Amino acid sequence: MQNILPKTGSIKDKVVAEDLLAERKNLNFDQLELTNFVFGGEENYKNYQEWTKILESDPILHNHHEFYEFTREEQIEHNLQKVKRMYEIDKKKYFQDYSEGYFQWYYYIFKGISPYGLHSTMFVSCIDCLSDDEQRAKWLHMAKDFKMLGCYAQTELGHGSNVTGVETTATFDKQTDEIIINTPTITATKFWPGELGKLTNFAMVYANLISNGKNYGVQPFLVQIRDFENHQPVQGVEIGDIGSKFGFNGKDNGFIIFNNLRIPRGNMLQRFSELDREGNFKVKGNQKALFSVMLMGRVQLINFSSFGLHWALLVGTRYAAVRRQFANQEGDKLERKLLDYQTHMMKYGPFLAYSIAFRFAVTDLIKMHKKLLAGLVNNDFGNLELLHHITSGYKSVFTTLSYDAIDEIRQSCGGAGFLSWSSLPSLQQDFAPNTTFEGDNTVMLQQAARLIMKNVTLVMKGKKPHEFFAHLELIKDLPVANKTLSSVSEVLELEYLDLALATRAAFKIRFFMEKYMTTEATENEKLNSLLAIDILPMVKAHVMYTTFRHFRQGIESNGFKCENLKKHFRNLCRLYALNELTQDNQSLYECGFFTQGTMKIISQGLKQLLQEIRPHMIPLVESLRIPDSILVSSIGNSYGDIYETQLEWAKGSRLNKSTTIKGFKELILPIVNGKL
Amino acid sequence: MQNILPKTGSIKDKVVAEDLLAERKNLNFDQLELTNFVFGGEENYKNYQEWTKILESDPILHNHHEFYEFTREEQIEHNLQKVKRMYEIDKKKYFQDYSEGYFQWYYYIFKGISPYGLHSTMFVSCIDCLSDDEQRAKWLHMAKDFKMLGCYAQTELGHGSNVTGVETTATFDKQTDEIIINTPTITATKFWPGELGKLTNFAMVYANLISNGKNYGVQPFLVQIRDFENHQPVQGVEIGDIGSKFGFNGKDNGFIIFNNLRIPRGNMLQRFSELDREGNFKVKGNQKALFSVMLMGRVQLINFSSFGLHWALLVGTRYAAVRRQFANQEGDKLERKLLDYQTHMMKYGPFLAYSIAFRFAVTDLIKMHKKLLAGLVNNDFGNLELLHHITSGYKSVFTTLSYDAIDEIRQSCGGAGFLSWSSLPSLQQDFAPNTTFEGDNTVMLQQAARLIMKNVTLVMKGKKPHEFFAHLELIKDLPVANKTLSSVSEVLELEYLDLALATRAAFKIRFFMEKYMTTEATENEKLNSLLAIDILPMVKAHVMYTTFRHFRQGIESNGFKCENLKKHFRNLCRLYALNELTQDNQSLYECGFFTQGTMKIISQGLKQLLQEIRPHMIPLVESLRIPDSILVSSIGNSYGDIYETQLEWAKGSRLNKSTTIKGFKELILPIVNGKL
Repeated sequence: MQNILPKTGSIKDKVVAEDLLAERKNLNFDQLELTNFVFGGEENYKNYQEWTKILESDPILHNHHEFYEFTREEQIEHNLQKVKRMYEIDKKKYFQDYSEGYFQWYYYIFKGISPYGLHSTMFVSCIDCLSDDEQRAKWLHMAKDFKMLGCYAQTELGHGSNVTGVETTATFDKQTDEIIINTPTITATKFWPGELGKLTNFAMVYANLISNGKNYGVQPFLVQIRDFENHQPVQGVEIGDIGSKFGFNGKDNGFIIFNNLRIPRGNMLQRFSELDREGNFKVKGNQKALFSVMLMGRVQLINFSSFGLHWALLVGTRYAAVRRQFANQEGDKLERKLLDYQTHMMKYGPFLAYSIAFRFAVTDLIKMHKKLLAGLVNNDFGNLELLHHITSGYKSVFTTLSYDAIDEIRQSCGGAGFLSWSSLPSLQQDFAPNTTFEGDNTVMLQQAARLIMKNVTLVMKGKKPHEFFAHLELIKDLPVANKTLSSVSEVLELEYLDLALATRAAFKIRFFMEKYMTTEATENEKLNSLLAIDILPMVKAHVMYTTFRHFRQGIESNGFKCENLKKHFRNLCRLYALNELTQDNQSLYECGFFTQGTMKIISQGLKQLLQEIRPHMIPLVESLRIPDSILVSSIGNSYGDIYETQLEWAKGSRLNKSTTIKGFKELILPIVNGKL
Repeated sequence: MQNILPKTGSIKDKVVAEDLLAERKNLNFDQLELTNFVFGGEENYKNYQEWTKILESDPILHNHHEFYEFTREEQIEHNLQKVKRMYEIDKKKYFQDYSEGYFQWYYYIFKGISPYGLHSTMFVSCIDCLSDDEQRAKWLHMAKDFKMLGCYAQTELGHGSNVTGVETTATFDKQTDEIIINTPTITATKFWPGELGKLTNFAMVYANLISNGKNYGVQPFLVQIRDFENHQPVQGVEIGDIGSKFGFNGKDNGFIIFNNLRIPRGNMLQRFSELDREGNFKVKGNQKALFSVMLMGRVQLINFSSFGLHWALLVGTRYAAVRRQFANQEGDKLERKLLDYQTHMMKYGPFLAYSIAFRFAVTDLIKMHKKLLAGLVNNDFGNLELLHHITSGYKSVFTTLSYDAIDEIRQSCGGAGFLSWSSLPSLQQDFAPNTTFEGDNTVMLQQAARLIMKNVTLVMKGKKPHEFFAHLELIKDLPVANKTLSSVSEVLELEYLDLALATRAAFKIRFFMEKYMTTEATENEKLNSLLAIDILPMVKAHVMYTTFRHFRQGIESNGFKCENLKKHFRNLCRLYALNELTQDNQSLYECGFFTQGTMKIISQGLKQLLQEIRPHMIPLVESLRIPDSILVSSIGNSYGDIYETQLEWAKGSRLNKSTTIKGFKELILPIVNGKL
């Protein structure tokens, strides 16, 4: 029996846990500067603060812990109340002028699942970018004003990643000047579109245009699916929600089956293609522009990867600073803080490093994306190909790493993390689709491989690769360096770590390319069946290296003023690299960059970093300033109240509304009383 | 647009998918022999078949896909109906004579969450093993007859893994000859016990016995918590369910706060200790016996690790054999089967190998455990220490690997796996607590380290280790072999793979021990703070090696008759090893066992194995013969019906009971209609 805990926190009594107070005293850097950075800039953070003021004070927008026990129907109804309230407060701000920073607010108020999030982004973007001027004038204001509520209906039951496989048909009927939408097979059923299930009256339907007996491929069509007045499905559609999911249950992913639904010819979106009265089809403009819209979704997922991981860390690190287990500290009867276990820091330290690394990467990415969008106006496609490469690779690697990390943080909080009150279960479950949607993560890595192959081919021909791929030049003479490490300080040099990660990537790329060039088979067979498993680690190593480069360069180039903050960044950058080199180092031994004895020095370096970072964990992690009322976590609140709130919420939970549960008295009590 | 799919399956029309039929034709071994093995023996499989006949035909015991959308209350009520029905059919068989094989039936009928599973195991075992003869005579039949329904109340809000930290008090009152149970602090609240929340009327409470002013440590007390007649909480307790969780929501994990609750002195369980009328406490017998009860729980989790992973594979592999995506096969417009992608096989092949490896390990383990239990009767504690080592290490490694694998299989089914209908979400979420309960997985690895350290110390002193640790002798002269591989056939020799995995484990053990012996710090600091992160990979490598040994030896020693089956086993055993050596090989380069060029040969060997195993995936995986009505998966049924059932269940889902969702008409429609 031990009961000699330092004072734990109490929200009720406004007492901050002694352990947490002590951790906060270690703050030795400008936390606000870091806060501005993790929120995507000073302006974003200011907007966020204004926004949270409203959120915290508004009785409808306020988050509640009861939400964690809501059914799907209750979650959706609750979120619709918030939508209505936001619309009332400032429809322009919340639904019409969204920008990249805006997506984060969604996260706070809707835990990432805004009822009209896809309407406001994908559907509105389609109208904005794919309509001709006339269509735009007719529809855009309707969509922005919530008169037309739309979903993006591309995926079918039988066709997900393979967009060109879509089977839905849109057949031009010359007689009536209409287009007839049909679902010819069961696999052609539109399946998965968010907000289709219950909440929208229009759909942007991707279907094969068939005119005069010829199939012109997949085009977007604006289709009304429910009645304006009573929201009942229109004739010619069968429609509904697709059911309960692993997570993201506040979203009404839906299905729709079309049966000879007729729409006017003018409802085909005509910015990049045209169908005339005679059924003649022609392409106009550069369809590449379509990609730039898709990119935005991926940039957001990359953004969320940093953000969601940081959120989980905020909960987990506060818990680990207060929760104690096992009195195993010499001469001290006090139990040890979880965060003081080396095994715990070996999880949380690298996770923080990854979260910050992803932040540096997305900061650069947003700049590139903005530049691209600006150029598009003048038909300048600039870095489109490069951005496609970066966003596919980063989306795949970051969402997977963050999902796994959130899961591990949840598990590292033991039972407390398993309870919904901690916020970690819903965080994980609602983050989970990110590894699938906007491109399955395995497919995304394969796509990202293409530009690597293109650039390495340049290098092999003695030409210069694009500067983003400068590290590919290493393949010519691997390893460049082969020095036997003699001290820990060497392994902590950023220059050394840079070369190590670049060499790892280069070796894997060369390893793949050698096989690729010597294997006798068709390209399809090589890429999908014979060499596919060499592609994934190659692209991952490349992404991890370029992310490191964003991180390392960003520390110096982003204009940070606080020297201590920069010191912490450098340590996290080192930790990122050493964690990588601990997990995957075969290539470095194979090319002789690592030799016998390296493991010992890396292990020492890693431990030294963990010790240096340990005291700063709370000040660093708490840079993500999320008020308790928005965080809504029983174990991650700012008071370090890890017990009182947990017990109080438990007491008020749904199953405790009555003392016995339905069924017990009729089914089991007779057995207990010997009557059965 | 592509619509040239081979005929997919249809349960409705009793049509098996062409793709699945073709895969089944590859069967070239005695599948029943494998089936018997994966079910834990011929007798187990026969029992299971009888059992499933009842399950399939009984209208109450039958599984329903609607269960996936049930609320917690509905799930529990539904399961109580099943309990009542089982009690009616054969209470002796289902609730009184449980054995190791029995636990699997639970899995089929309750998806692992039996309402009285803990009552029937932990609670009844405590009475059976910890009561003296008089107590046993009084209570055991009551518990087995469901008159007394009990939970196991050990964990507290503040004390999970650290059992000795329990704060609840049981104070002897000499005047009344009673014991007073109290919850002195908030952290002393009993929190988490399953079946405490709603379903039991007794609790086995672990509390500090205080008598005559002295604390005698934690003892078990039988405490009535609810009334026999009306099931209301007794006076002196506050009690309830703790709320919604990441998974396992059909279980009423509960909390209880004691306020001067009095029980008779005779309710302290007295087989191993005694409290007399004067309050004198004395220990009797060998308390080691307690551990043997705890071991059973871990053996079951190890068992489930093989079983749960195999279940997920059954769903995922059938889906991957029918689902096609991307027409990238040369000269073929047909899209490629997921299972024909090398990246997919690189997941599923090793997962199958792990599932079978775990099955071999648990087969040996159950034998050892039975021998131990038999010996205990004569106070022979035989291999108790070794079994503690094995069960902690295996429980930790296997549950983590299987949880991660189930998650990855779910993700690899894309959207279809994200939908609850697939069965994969609940499988993952309900499997999730296994990494935490019965011992947190990090703590378990640390515990398993002790016996390794003890044996390696013997080796270092020139003595022989226990035969289970024979591979530790390698540390004396690492590496034993250092041959440069010249062909793929060498890397596929089981002898070579055995040595490689043993060497990897031995190197990590030596690496840790060298630091351990030269680091100047207290043992606690070394084990928890300075060297802790070296312990985890060391224990894991040791577990992965000994599991390989069970696998390799078991193929020859388990009396398998079918030579082709043994060939498949050997290939899976190789695949297990090569996958391990691909994922973690630093130690082997460090000690010179691997050299430059090894990576290429291992990669070739791995690919060759994947190709060899590929055609046999369906016949191998389908050895887990679970009828569709028990599996209840929209994408993993035996017909390869991956579309019709999915769409049909979607159509009938809960949100489709009405065409519009609650809240929409009041909140959003006025906006659409311009009235807001």
